[in-house]
Amino acid sequence: MIDHSFTQPEYAARLAKTRAEMATRGLDALFVTDPSNMAWLAGYDGWSFYVHQGVLLTHEGQPVWWGRAMDSAGAQRTTYLDDDNIVGYDDTYVQNPDKHPMEDLARLIAARGLENARIGFELDNYYFTASAFLTLQTRLPGVNIQNATALVNWQRAVKSPTELEYMRRAARIVERMHEVIREKAEVGMRKNDLIADIYHASVSGAHGHWGDYPACVPMTPSGLDATAPHITWDDAPLRNNEGTFFEIAGAHRRYQCPQSRTLFLGKPPQKYLDAENAVLEAIDAGLEQAKPGNRCEDIARAFNTNLRKRGFEKDSRCGYAIGLSYPPDWGERTMSFRAGDTTVLEPGMTFHFMPALWLDDGGIEITEPIVITETGADCLCTTPRALMIKE
Amino acid sequence: MIDHSFTQPEYAARLAKTRAEMATRGLDALFVTDPSNMAWLAGYDGWSFYVHQGVLLTHEGQPVWWGRAMDSAGAQRTTYLDDDNIVGYDDTYVQNPDKHPMEDLARLIAARGLENARIGFELDNYYFTASAFLTLQTRLPGVNIQNATALVNWQRAVKSPTELEYMRRAARIVERMHEVIREKAEVGMRKNDLIADIYHASVSGAHGHWGDYPACVPMTPSGLDATAPHITWDDAPLRNNEGTFFEIAGAHRRYQCPQSRTLFLGKPPQKYLDAENAVLEAIDAGLEQAKPGNRCEDIARAFNTNLRKRGFEKDSRCGYAIGLSYPPDWGERTMSFRAGDTTVLEPGMTFHFMPALWLDDGGIEITEPIVITETGADCLCTTPRALMIKE
Repeated sequence: MIDHSFTQPEYAARLAKTRAEMATRGLDALFVTDPSNMAWLAGYDGWSFYVHQGVLLTHEGQPVWWGRAMDSAGAQRTTYLDDDNIVGYDDTYVQNPDKHPMEDLARLIAARGLENARIGFELDNYYFTASAFLTLQTRLPGVNIQNATALVNWQRAVKSPTELEYMRRAARIVERMHEVIREKAEVGMRKNDLIADIYHASVSGAHGHWGDYPACVPMTPSGLDATAPHITWDDAPLRNNEGTFFEIAGAHRRYQCPQSRTLFLGKPPQKYLDAENAVLEAIDAGLEQAKPGNRCEDIARAFNTNLRKRGFEKDSRCGYAIGLSYPPDWGERTMSFRAGDTTVLEPGMTFHFMPALWLDDGGIEITEPIVITETGADCLCTTPRALMIKE
Repeated sequence: MIDHSFTQPEYAARLAKTRAEMATRGLDALFVTDPSNMAWLAGYDGWSFYVHQGVLLTHEGQPVWWGRAMDSAGAQRTTYLDDDNIVGYDDTYVQNPDKHPMEDLARLIAARGLENARIGFELDNYYFTASAFLTLQTRLPGVNIQNATALVNWQRAVKSPTELEYMRRAARIVERMHEVIREKAEVGMRKNDLIADIYHASVSGAHGHWGDYPACVPMTPSGLDATAPHITWDDAPLRNNEGTFFEIAGAHRRYQCPQSRTLFLGKPPQKYLDAENAVLEAIDAGLEQAKPGNRCEDIARAFNTNLRKRGFEKDSRCGYAIGLSYPPDWGERTMSFRAGDTTVLEPGMTFHFMPALWLDDGGIEITEPIVITETGADCLCTTPRALMIKE
């Protein structure tokens, strides 16, 4: 499991980009808890983010991995860091109401001479709680705590050739997952049995490349449940004349390629087909705006204008950045396709163009993971862009 | 997907227990973000915890579900709440650096007459960030913010008969997952292909009961990687004369039953067999102490004393409470089996007795999910308690 996913020069380039942004913001140091940022900077990989941990980066030397003592073995196995830069805290700090692991981090920060530094923390990350903040504030009164939420995520926006290669492998996997749905789904099948087949395809991988775990589980509601976006599954049988959307992702080496399709068993009502046509036309309009120099909001505007012409409305964002990710979100939490997001598109940026419609009586999701190229955008997947109808 | 998992009297009992503890602490209201607490109080289920959301509870009336507008449809589908008590915020708040969803929650809290109340928040929960805290503090200067981390988790410690039934169904599933490992694992098999089979079994379910998603993915390191506890998988083939542990869980209706076993392909070295014997004897000693009236630390002391006699050491906790859970942790984050945890055991409490050993050259995990009974403890699973050796 020694990490050979990326070369040392690639890690060095990541550190340099991140340090440049730290310098712009006047930060002496940065502490990241987002597992995807820990992985991107230091190579760390493991399901240990249910305890407090992080990576500390200054302007000199290697990053420092800090976490639960038992996980320092995992840091030795998966990162490129020297043992001096892997620091574990005592297990008595784990989920103990009487003490907080950030007391230990405070000692580390002081020991590294940063007790009066200006340090960025990811204040709005899942893995940086209010208690973590309050403990550090109390223990490090001299530290100037700055909000560095998504600082590293933004450095990850433009993907390297190796990262794109991993995303394309993940794309092959999610294509295969949709093929399995087409092959296996039938009236009367228990939903969980279909999900079992989807999982099997997802982890088996495709084209010889293994499947890693997606950062979200399959979201697969049917019928009225599909008026809601994030319902998972149970054992209710698939029914005739019912739609089910499959919001799923392939993953390879933690890189995510989400793509949704909608299955209809039987003959779809006209309204459903109208919604399909509206979405397909609006996707084309959106994709035309997906090119370097345009802005995120240009894609949303083109999509929404076209959708409205056909009598449909969508009041939520229709896309977001994707790449390396850990639960609970396969997005990068930086750019969104929506009015007001004026981020300029650049070649190598990757998005989930996610124009889902949740209607009064069901949902339609037909979505495309894309990469911005020198002249426009490529869809990462070749899954047929249409309702998946099995009569 | 309308929730029929629990009766209304069961929900009423949960609210009453929680309100009693709120009264003890002098809380006018409680806001929970832990998805398992949202589910336990209100029935809510969905993979939407990657955005800010929660459940607000006062001493009167129903709880209030608050979250992203698009997820209010999911709240209507999965909770027992009236529409008035399902409140959604505008999508422009989602992952937008210029505004924070907690601005909207602050308005809700004020609108419900709580702008000068004493309110408990789960300050050390994954889904309550430092920014969430800082935004509420700024927007609600009159609110007295109290730390209510795990307040609800503690009310969940003793399981109801229905909850125990769901955990027993999950136990059947994890037994089946270990059977699949025994049936399928062989030298040369790609690890991810074995994981695909494990996932398939996990979601297919067992004894006619469907499998839900476990709150952690399989952690399945081999050889030296098994010196670390939380490494997942890749496509390296299973090798002869190598051990692999499988830290996995079955899940049913979000109730988790984790259990670990260790596979050895070939003939295990004597040290490995010695470790197995030491762990098995120490498990017996621990289980003897697992009975009402004893304390969590009594189990740890019995386990560690016996382990030490055999020449092995474990410096981390050897168990924790389990039940209803969502990623990233299948534990309940209340009780731990370790020195200093003086919680008194009661019938109906459920734990993962997790006496894993991570040695210099590999790891052994043989673990038991248990329920405290009137007179002792029952193991929830019947998986053979031994190394799984395939020569």
